[in-house]
Amino acid sequence: MAAAQSSGGVERPISNILIVIAMQTEAQPVVNKFELIEDPHSPFPQGVPWVRYHGKYKDLNINLIWPGKDPISGVDSVGTISSALVTYAAIQALQPDLIINAGTAGGFKARGASVGDIFIASDCAFHDRRIPIPVFDLYGVGSRKAFETPNLVKELDLKVAKLSTGDSLDMTEQDESSITANDATVKDMEGAAVAYVADLLKVPAIFVKAVTDIIDGDKPTAEEFLQNLAAVTAALDLAVEKVVNFINGKSISEL
Amino acid sequence: MAAAQSSGGVERPISNILIVIAMQTEAQPVVNKFELIEDPHSPFPQGVPWVRYHGKYKDLNINLIWPGKDPISGVDSVGTISSALVTYAAIQALQPDLIINAGTAGGFKARGASVGDIFIASDCAFHDRRIPIPVFDLYGVGSRKAFETPNLVKELDLKVAKLSTGDSLDMTEQDESSITANDATVKDMEGAAVAYVADLLKVPAIFVKAVTDIIDGDKPTAEEFLQNLAAVTAALDLAVEKVVNFINGKSISEL
Repeated sequence: MAAAQSSGGVERPISNILIVIAMQTEAQPVVNKFELIEDPHSPFPQGVPWVRYHGKYKDLNINLIWPGKDPISGVDSVGTISSALVTYAAIQALQPDLIINAGTAGGFKARGASVGDIFIASDCAFHDRRIPIPVFDLYGVGSRKAFETPNLVKELDLKVAKLSTGDSLDMTEQDESSITANDATVKDMEGAAVAYVADLLKVPAIFVKAVTDIIDGDKPTAEEFLQNLAAVTAALDLAVEKVVNFINGKSISEL
Repeated sequence: MAAAQSSGGVERPISNILIVIAMQTEAQPVVNKFELIEDPHSPFPQGVPWVRYHGKYKDLNINLIWPGKDPISGVDSVGTISSALVTYAAIQALQPDLIINAGTAGGFKARGASVGDIFIASDCAFHDRRIPIPVFDLYGVGSRKAFETPNLVKELDLKVAKLSTGDSLDMTEQDESSITANDATVKDMEGAAVAYVADLLKVPAIFVKAVTDIIDGDKPTAEEFLQNLAAVTAALDLAVEKVVNFINGKSISEL
């Protein structure tokens, strides 16, 4: 919270927000909605594919960072390593007051998730970092509370649930056990990595996740994910817009 | 290679090396051997636990970066996210000519590995990033050639093999299939992440891995790992010393 507090202890309104989105399909509608423009002078070093979009919206400076296309394979740089790196580099370069990690996720219908649902994460943890040595096991899981936004979730009537993160789109038995142990309703490939970096650097972070596929349903994840990506991205985009409108003019402690 | 080439195209000797080591137990003997001292003015931002040791050894400036103790759990910050972050931040801050990622690893006896063996990685890839969508699957595996050092491996008579990286100390069936597909003899928790960042930023990187435990053996990995850690760390330390001595006075293309 420090970043958004004045030295006198009276909180000032949030002015600088950083939106981290892993896929171009997810990022582009948000870029369009807020009329963000791509920074021709990247704040990032030569060689990295990370793209910064920025603009002014109402009283907010918005930076949206997309990790870009992998230089070798040409696909979006999804997953924990890229999202950790861009979050780190963007915090250093842009000093945001608040981070919003937005993206699509898988959801468990047994825990109340449906395709198109928007969740705010209360907690983030990893489900594919198993280190069966005392204390290292807890480090591997890396469970962290997201920044709490009770007013935001009430006002926008958003679902709140725990998020579990791993670097695979599919789910093994061991992943499933860990996700259950993490008490998670939604599963993504970036959240806990963004939470880790934000926590190290003491920047409040919130997580807006839209369900593209039902993990405990009948359809293969990859197929359902691709089928629903465009429609769910529209729902995500709308949710991010509402979240940003709610944030505008408020201080961190009013969220 | 660009970093170690003069503008005239004539290569100068390597002067600045960055050693990335994930665990304190692995790092401390190397710090002692080269009489490195901890930098009291960290080049890294406030909040991160990353530790820089540095010193002059023969004609080389050596920086050794250890990701430090996790602020929450107090254990070494092992795994891909931490090692990617410190590699990124250290390249930015220290502009090394060459990166050496040194550490312990599991080995497959069926592929010729024994406890205490030292391997130089020819290739690095991930085994726990399964994304079953065309091209994303290749991005997930993220196979990369390490910088080739034919003279070094010949002179020091080191084994060369492929390395597979994942964020778990144990190995599931799916991990095993992916490790087999990666054609790997050694398995660690950092290598491919260091290789990814080094490749993005075009810094040559080599990987020195010492086998602490036999994955396809009878003993539980965690137990065997802890049992052999101290002894194997001594072998690793000796190998790193030989590698650094070999590097001293040579240009990148002479390795």
